Amino acid sequence: MTAKKAFIIFSLCIIHLTTFGQSKVEQWKRFEMTFNQTFSGNAFTDVQLQATFSSSDTTYIIKGFYDGNHTFKIRFMPPKLGVWNYTVQSNLEKLHNKKGSFECVKAISGNHGTVKVANTYDFRYADGKPYYPFGTTAYAWTHMSKAIQEETLNSLKKAGFNKIRMCVFPKNYDLVREEPELYPFEVKKIEKDTKGNEVRIWDFEKFNPAFFQHLEKRVADLDALGIEADLILFHPYDKGRWGFDAMPNEVNVRYLEYMLARLGSYKNVWWSLANEWDYLKSKTVKDWDLFAETMAQKDPYKHLCSIHGASSTYYNYFKPEFSHVSIQDEIPVGNPSAAGLLRNIYHKPIISDEVGYEGNLKSRWGRYSPEEMNHLVWNGVIAGTYVTHGECYMFKDKTDIIFWGKGGTFRGESWKRTPFIRKIVEECPNSLQLSDIGRDNVTATAGDGYYIIYFGKQMNDSWFFNLPAKNGSYKKLSAGKKFKVEIIDTWEMKIQEVPLVFETAKENDYRLFDKDLQKIRLPLKPYIALRITEIK
Amino acid sequence: MTAKKAFIIFSLCIIHLTTFGQSKVEQWKRFEMTFNQTFSGNAFTDVQLQATFSSSDTTYIIKGFYDGNHTFKIRFMPPKLGVWNYTVQSNLEKLHNKKGSFECVKAISGNHGTVKVANTYDFRYADGKPYYPFGTTAYAWTHMSKAIQEETLNSLKKAGFNKIRMCVFPKNYDLVREEPELYPFEVKKIEKDTKGNEVRIWDFEKFNPAFFQHLEKRVADLDALGIEADLILFHPYDKGRWGFDAMPNEVNVRYLEYMLARLGSYKNVWWSLANEWDYLKSKTVKDWDLFAETMAQKDPYKHLCSIHGASSTYYNYFKPEFSHVSIQDEIPVGNPSAAGLLRNIYHKPIISDEVGYEGNLKSRWGRYSPEEMNHLVWNGVIAGTYVTHGECYMFKDKTDIIFWGKGGTFRGESWKRTPFIRKIVEECPNSLQLSDIGRDNVTATAGDGYYIIYFGKQMNDSWFFNLPAKNGSYKKLSAGKKFKVEIIDTWEMKIQEVPLVFETAKENDYRLFDKDLQKIRLPLKPYIALRITEIK
Repeated sequence: MTAKKAFIIFSLCIIHLTTFGQSKVEQWKRFEMTFNQTFSGNAFTDVQLQATFSSSDTTYIIKGFYDGNHTFKIRFMPPKLGVWNYTVQSNLEKLHNKKGSFECVKAISGNHGTVKVANTYDFRYADGKPYYPFGTTAYAWTHMSKAIQEETLNSLKKAGFNKIRMCVFPKNYDLVREEPELYPFEVKKIEKDTKGNEVRIWDFEKFNPAFFQHLEKRVADLDALGIEADLILFHPYDKGRWGFDAMPNEVNVRYLEYMLARLGSYKNVWWSLANEWDYLKSKTVKDWDLFAETMAQKDPYKHLCSIHGASSTYYNYFKPEFSHVSIQDEIPVGNPSAAGLLRNIYHKPIISDEVGYEGNLKSRWGRYSPEEMNHLVWNGVIAGTYVTHGECYMFKDKTDIIFWGKGGTFRGESWKRTPFIRKIVEECPNSLQLSDIGRDNVTATAGDGYYIIYFGKQMNDSWFFNLPAKNGSYKKLSAGKKFKVEIIDTWEMKIQEVPLVFETAKENDYRLFDKDLQKIRLPLKPYIALRITEIK
Repeated sequence: MTAKKAFIIFSLCIIHLTTFGQSKVEQWKRFEMTFNQTFSGNAFTDVQLQATFSSSDTTYIIKGFYDGNHTFKIRFMPPKLGVWNYTVQSNLEKLHNKKGSFECVKAISGNHGTVKVANTYDFRYADGKPYYPFGTTAYAWTHMSKAIQEETLNSLKKAGFNKIRMCVFPKNYDLVREEPELYPFEVKKIEKDTKGNEVRIWDFEKFNPAFFQHLEKRVADLDALGIEADLILFHPYDKGRWGFDAMPNEVNVRYLEYMLARLGSYKNVWWSLANEWDYLKSKTVKDWDLFAETMAQKDPYKHLCSIHGASSTYYNYFKPEFSHVSIQDEIPVGNPSAAGLLRNIYHKPIISDEVGYEGNLKSRWGRYSPEEMNHLVWNGVIAGTYVTHGECYMFKDKTDIIFWGKGGTFRGESWKRTPFIRKIVEECPNSLQLSDIGRDNVTATAGDGYYIIYFGKQMNDSWFFNLPAKNGSYKKLSAGKKFKVEIIDTWEMKIQEVPLVFETAKENDYRLFDKDLQKIRLPLKPYIALRITEIK
């Protein structure tokens, strides 16, 4: 390249940098280029727009999108530090071949990057920090009034959740009937049905950018709170009201691609293909497979992706498109062994994304006591799986702001326990797993010399110090190890250290007791746990 | 075809019928052609031999095999009634193009054909009769002395089992050290190792027909008793003694093909690729996949096929090569919901082929009480899964004839309960499944108006008549249905009818009670079940 040519390219870069995007972007945050450009056709379907981003040996091809108002955008989440050069490709001549560069700089505190699968059963942020999902549920919160949305964010700020399950499309369900302010598609016309109700006829070839801008704002709000947005892409709670559950696959795939182009660069996004996929009678397993393949192939960042069925409906989670298992079932959290069983079957992270909810509904899925909700979370967590919270309190009537559906304010008790269990899990040197699955249903290990025992509903007045010889995937426990024991009341959120030192005797019938058979007093209450850590 | 040509072919057929095989064969029994033919090379590897069998629109290509002593055989299990014509293809000129026919005639009593998967979760014989597997375990019984083998068959004749897990290769394990009389390969030479022990060097290119003839005899003996032979093709209990666990894949595949050619025509054969596959350190998942594909592609009859891992090791049973799930795990039989969970995950029949054994060993997998063994069988069966029995009683020392390893005589108590539970299951109008999985852990349905409740370890002194509204895959239970109740003591094997008629009131919170809230006395003992049948 001649010096002159290089100079021209350099100058162009400078111009483009100032014109189209930022010059510096934090790692895993968003570089965004904006182009104002008139286009006479359908800018959603007829414009091809993408950019190639390169930095040393890494290249990403990133799709752009039309954002309405003669505005086109390309968003990119830089996964690596350093200078990124880009070139635009488009059938819009004025945009084609535009080039530029920006610098990806070190993330500042609170930005740990995208969450990925780690060590088969767990998750980790891109910067290496472990991520243990403690989620809650508010399916349609972004479709409520602005006031409720703000209230929801305030509630989440006070709670300890780091994931939320939420629907992209509005919800039409017995307890959630609110008409949303924004729709994902442009309205072609409004007709009246035989009952005189307004029926919107959508132009499925035109998205409504305002809908997605709003969703993005909420996803960014969650990110600011350190909460992952588990975005449910389809759901069955439409029942003919808007028809978003029964669009042709051409529209479905275009919608998924639009979501990817717009929201793929949001680091806290997860894709949940569906809630209760099997209730979506308009779609077959082949359709879901198509959507899974679409997301897996077209998401340049490979965000976490799963699919969620109705109770006890298991998809084929062995498919490589699914990063983790996202189930609705009470059985695996019935006891830690059953939860751990799922790890052994799938060899992927297991999230029980619905096990029923704390609440006072008539429906049995929405009337667990707070103690039961907390207990089910513990049962799953002890086994190295993850359990999503939800609450359904209705005090007046069906218009109540129930958090599970609409967000708002938590009314229950179990949500308050989230920071407590989360801290216990996050303080572990490694993620938890059952020490001796199938034979010991209470003891979890987090590595050499670090155990959590959860007695669940057992009420014990004392406990002989004893641990299984088998220690999960770690090396067997041996004699002569010294331990301290803390008694954890998982309901009262209290931790009390036992003023004794225990020392393992040699293995006796698969277990190691204290050499002097020391025992401790327990409070004869349910939901008691022990933290047992080696004194080195 | 001219009349003359037809006459010649007809005459040839007559000749061949008398020369090579039977003229009439019962459906699902064995048509066998025998050819005496000298061959100067390696008749196992250098002879190609197969026959095409055709009957109306059905054609099977069946591989022959060398049976030693200048004898070649082709065996065929006719799956359909009528005349079957065959033509031999071979690189042995004298055998090539030999033709003939035989008639497949109706099966007589006791011959129900091969067992196949039915209705996703169950099994059925080829003639449509339901098959519910109640198996036991005697891994190395065919490698014991003739006297023990006969004793084993006698024991099986008295017990109610209809499946047995057994290894093709001999076993070298702490409690099973017997040197077999026969080996699967020809001995090339015998060397001495550094300790002076004899080490046989095998000619892996030459099978030992006597070994397989013996195995076939035992498989036929089992068939005569109505017992399916779940043949374990590889296992890890060799540990360098014979080396059958560490042969090259070329030999492994040739062995599988030889098994298919010889034993594929035995209607009661199942293929179990391995016991504890994950302990076979010489083989990878890729190897197991190869073996699975070999069996699936080359078995013309598609016998049932699975693979069995060590405790809590789950293979990818989603693979289409596996007809059913054959697991070793205590967790699923810990309670019926956990067993039913596996049905929901795999959508295939589930057989817990090892849940631990009744016995008195030091090892925890071999020391269940008879009551516990029986209880675990019930837990699995109630959920519509199947549980294999086994017993490990050692009264003297390690040379004891423990049924689990060597066969012989049953010493325990749980085996006696097999005919009892089997009769209860076989009397059901349909196979069992949990009525309301995840919410009711005791009630199974076998269709409209037919329930089995198993209380397991619950000890109740009474029971209010009540059933879940949900009835598995059948229609919901409604009010006004009349029922009778029988109390089943699963341990004592007694059934007592309650002299009352119950009538369902309308649904109340997911359940239907008797309209007069009638209750019955229960014996305040564990292992009590109820059979509840509609009076129509």
